[in-house]
Amino acid sequence: MTARRLVCGLDLGGTKLLGVVVDPDAEGKPPLLEEKVATAHGTDAVVASLLDLAHRMEERTAVELGGRLAAVGLGAPGLVDRSGTLRYGPNLPGVVDLDLSSVLHDAVGLPVAVDNDATCAAWGEHERGAARGRNHSITITLGTGIGAGITVKGEVLRGANGFAGEAGHMVVDPDGPLCPCGRRGCWERYASGSGLARLAREAAHAGVAPRVVALAGGEPEDVRGEHVTAAAGEGDAAALTVLDHFGWWVAVGIANLVNVFDSEMVVIGGGLIEAGDLVLDPTRRAYRELVLAADRRPAVDIVSAELGERAGAIGAALLAAARC
Amino acid sequence: MTARRLVCGLDLGGTKLLGVVVDPDAEGKPPLLEEKVATAHGTDAVVASLLDLAHRMEERTAVELGGRLAAVGLGAPGLVDRSGTLRYGPNLPGVVDLDLSSVLHDAVGLPVAVDNDATCAAWGEHERGAARGRNHSITITLGTGIGAGITVKGEVLRGANGFAGEAGHMVVDPDGPLCPCGRRGCWERYASGSGLARLAREAAHAGVAPRVVALAGGEPEDVRGEHVTAAAGEGDAAALTVLDHFGWWVAVGIANLVNVFDSEMVVIGGGLIEAGDLVLDPTRRAYRELVLAADRRPAVDIVSAELGERAGAIGAALLAAARC
Repeated sequence: MTARRLVCGLDLGGTKLLGVVVDPDAEGKPPLLEEKVATAHGTDAVVASLLDLAHRMEERTAVELGGRLAAVGLGAPGLVDRSGTLRYGPNLPGVVDLDLSSVLHDAVGLPVAVDNDATCAAWGEHERGAARGRNHSITITLGTGIGAGITVKGEVLRGANGFAGEAGHMVVDPDGPLCPCGRRGCWERYASGSGLARLAREAAHAGVAPRVVALAGGEPEDVRGEHVTAAAGEGDAAALTVLDHFGWWVAVGIANLVNVFDSEMVVIGGGLIEAGDLVLDPTRRAYRELVLAADRRPAVDIVSAELGERAGAIGAALLAAARC
Repeated sequence: MTARRLVCGLDLGGTKLLGVVVDPDAEGKPPLLEEKVATAHGTDAVVASLLDLAHRMEERTAVELGGRLAAVGLGAPGLVDRSGTLRYGPNLPGVVDLDLSSVLHDAVGLPVAVDNDATCAAWGEHERGAARGRNHSITITLGTGIGAGITVKGEVLRGANGFAGEAGHMVVDPDGPLCPCGRRGCWERYASGSGLARLAREAAHAGVAPRVVALAGGEPEDVRGEHVTAAAGEGDAAALTVLDHFGWWVAVGIANLVNVFDSEMVVIGGGLIEAGDLVLDPTRRAYRELVLAADRRPAVDIVSAELGERAGAIGAALLAAARC
């Protein structure tokens, strides 16, 4: 019925598994098909749900699009080596040294591309999202932690082993809070969704953020990032102060990265970014103070991601498309 | 007399200007010619001494090697854009927006390549030094500040504007000491020669490093990095403790860089490295604690630079050779 190439992209997260089907040769952001399930626990269950979703996307491609998949891409959370094996995935408890590439290839019999999820998201934003046309970009996703993917000369930066982009674990404050990775003061302790919640709880416990606490139901310990952005959206001064502080920490890591990569654009994704300029404006202001010689270099655009939670799956699909 | 290509490399530093002539098509580290002068002050004097040295290297190439230069390369300290203009050079007071590429090209009438000095040093180490055969490497030079040059896929990383590699100004401690760049806690406040001197003076003032103070002539304020490495070389426990602490700070920045670049090798140069394993061993130990998931990734070699103070000039020459 159609001769177009169709590719499947899967994004395996700590809480959800998302699958999409896209036409890599057509423009446009929305995937042709999309499906989401909760992430299973343990290696066998993770593998079963991955293969199940891949097969379902194959079936739906046949039935709904009258086509066949040409390749499957997968983004996985953690250190994914160049053979497509997940070497370290702290957000998938019990999953160690899982050769995702072979597992997927054996099941679907198609070319397969497996990369880190943040690398996939960066490629998605580069090809179909906010970083289109930019050769040197950084895409960071502020979630429970921080994922980062980097493009250099219009290509994904993988590094020697495929592990590049672990920006969330840059140490930015050696006396800072303990990170689950074992170190202190990793950037993601401050600049992630959980970092914002921590800053907000500090303000809540100090008694200076009553509106934020009220939105959280009255308990300082229950304050989360969305209570801050909601209060800030109402114009609450205490919430805006927390976001200023948060934006400063986001900017520390961005400035460190721009200092070493000299990127043209920084794309920020993750749930927090629904608050838009409430988060981005303090980040942009602080960035100019923190990057080396801001007045001697072209401005760097710090913008919202455009593909939302689909960035990783779309990017995985497009990386797989390069293999078929 | 000879048909071989010969290229000149110049390395403009804050205190010295070094010129070399190399044969880019031959193996071997030592340059065929070499000459060093003190750096002049002010734009006109800097330009005059650069052109003077370039012309002298041309003459010496004719007289001593019976050949002609095919190109000239230059490494300059600071932000050098892709047109070869020095945009920001804090170590060259009074020099602003200097179009080094045009100045040099107009004077010598040859193809010219101008890059950041640390980028040139990284290329020198990649082509002729410690990082030969490594596609993903980081070369850092620990001097008054920190210079860093990065290779990705066997190529120099320049970034969007040519400014990549400013690792010395990664913020690693927001409450740390003030940096001349205006920020607090830049990596080079800790991990450079001046950072070691500061750590050593703290120990000296605390009265815990008598041998180091003795080597400095008895005055804690006169303690410099070489007094620490000298005392450590004698086995002085206090000096070794200072170097442990120093190595930890060096490792913080290296771990941050390896986390984002996933490099195979880190090459460390600068005067301090004459102390060899006294500095490198504490750095290597701390690096393994600081990088993400050290036990899940191949080891990264942290080694001494091989080209010494000639790395930048040799690298500049070899970058210029690519243009002729």
